[in-house]
Amino acid sequence: MSVVDLARFMDDLATASGQAILPFFRAAFGMDDKARGGAAFDPVTEADRAAEVAMRGMIRRHLPTHGILGEEFGSENLDAECVWVLDPIDGTRAFVAGLPTWGTLIGLTHHGAAVRGLMHQPYLGEMFSGDGAQARLRSPRGERKLLSRRGTALDQAVLATTDPRLFAEGAERERYLALEGAVRLSRYGTDCYAYCMLAAGQIDLVVEAGLKPYDIVALIPIIEGAGGIVTTWDGGPAIGGGRIVAAGDPRLHETALRHLNP
Amino acid sequence: MSVVDLARFMDDLATASGQAILPFFRAAFGMDDKARGGAAFDPVTEADRAAEVAMRGMIRRHLPTHGILGEEFGSENLDAECVWVLDPIDGTRAFVAGLPTWGTLIGLTHHGAAVRGLMHQPYLGEMFSGDGAQARLRSPRGERKLLSRRGTALDQAVLATTDPRLFAEGAERERYLALEGAVRLSRYGTDCYAYCMLAAGQIDLVVEAGLKPYDIVALIPIIEGAGGIVTTWDGGPAIGGGRIVAAGDPRLHETALRHLNP
Repeated sequence: MSVVDLARFMDDLATASGQAILPFFRAAFGMDDKARGGAAFDPVTEADRAAEVAMRGMIRRHLPTHGILGEEFGSENLDAECVWVLDPIDGTRAFVAGLPTWGTLIGLTHHGAAVRGLMHQPYLGEMFSGDGAQARLRSPRGERKLLSRRGTALDQAVLATTDPRLFAEGAERERYLALEGAVRLSRYGTDCYAYCMLAAGQIDLVVEAGLKPYDIVALIPIIEGAGGIVTTWDGGPAIGGGRIVAAGDPRLHETALRHLNP
Repeated sequence: MSVVDLARFMDDLATASGQAILPFFRAAFGMDDKARGGAAFDPVTEADRAAEVAMRGMIRRHLPTHGILGEEFGSENLDAECVWVLDPIDGTRAFVAGLPTWGTLIGLTHHGAAVRGLMHQPYLGEMFSGDGAQARLRSPRGERKLLSRRGTALDQAVLATTDPRLFAEGAERERYLALEGAVRLSRYGTDCYAYCMLAAGQIDLVVEAGLKPYDIVALIPIIEGAGGIVTTWDGGPAIGGGRIVAAGDPRLHETALRHLNP
């Protein structure tokens, strides 16, 4: 598959996923409680599964030699040269709450390295993509190259994390809080969206813990393509998830690592 | 001014405000650091002021007997029968971080009661409005009536707050955390958007502290118009801000008050 065909295929995956998810997003709007159905109905799980089924079907049909690692339906053929890493709804709490800051993550690894990534927010029509060398945002407002912000000192930095409760009580949370206390501004409740805003030069640092590979693989080529850097807290590869720190600027990343490893 | 004219005037205020703000939102996207300018440039303050200047000018011109209470430029003529309560950018941290969950709040009080409210998210084109008797969302996807969710038990509730650091350390934060520990799911990083999602039946409880009148006045007619209830933690009127608790369901509101006032 050529590079152009690959980009088109990823767009098609995102489109199919968005079509599967959107009917479930804010589905309760304007309905009374009877029409909303009982507590047994779980829109986010239904949407998650419908989207992953759609994407897995397309990959199996068009790229049968590729492997797949998905959030909902596990892994298949992981020793393949190319493996797709899928999270149909990253940010399930945002989705449940009706907030438009969740996203669909579609990553591609080649010989174990994250080479292509896409974050799709179908409600907003935003598509963030990257290949490690460059990154772009396509939206109804047009297409723009993404460049992370450079030269920000720690005390001027904007930090984001999904939830401070991600960090295990004790040393892990204390290290995070030490870093949080040193920045200009911190913001909670961000999920995958924060990494894309880091690629766009709006956020300087994203720090999280307890991530799964499907939470981060798709974001690596976007962050790196925009000039940013993303690793584990000990400076290792981010591809396996765990404790993650992303920075728009390499020096800021070093500074953050020092705070997280005192 | 007739009811129809008033609704149109509020739309015009929102449109003018959005036009003033949007050029500053994500203005750095796709620019390198030189083009982004120095640290002295503060897009959110510039946007906030430009929008408030535009709205104040329209109110003075068309409704010169009305009072105005604004976040940026203080108050004028507050003893008037009708007073406009304006917050051009509620959620400045979201704005700075590039997240689309900030909003423009436009409220109208009549003899000291909040009678009309509008929350406008110009990047999404979403306009939430209410008059205490009903509430609506107008967006590029159409127009829908908003109805809050009823009959949710506390252990099934979705709770939102902008930031747990809003609550003063000690008794205030402990009371909040006791409530947070009793719900099904809680979400941080929400600002005015959470109250609109409560009106839409996606979120069951919003709990905050330290709010100013301009943070809440516009939201009261939206929440109440959708069937919800919003008061201070001691059950008093929300219009003055302070510690606020909003619920989609009146019984859930009572339950929350008991947790917040042990």
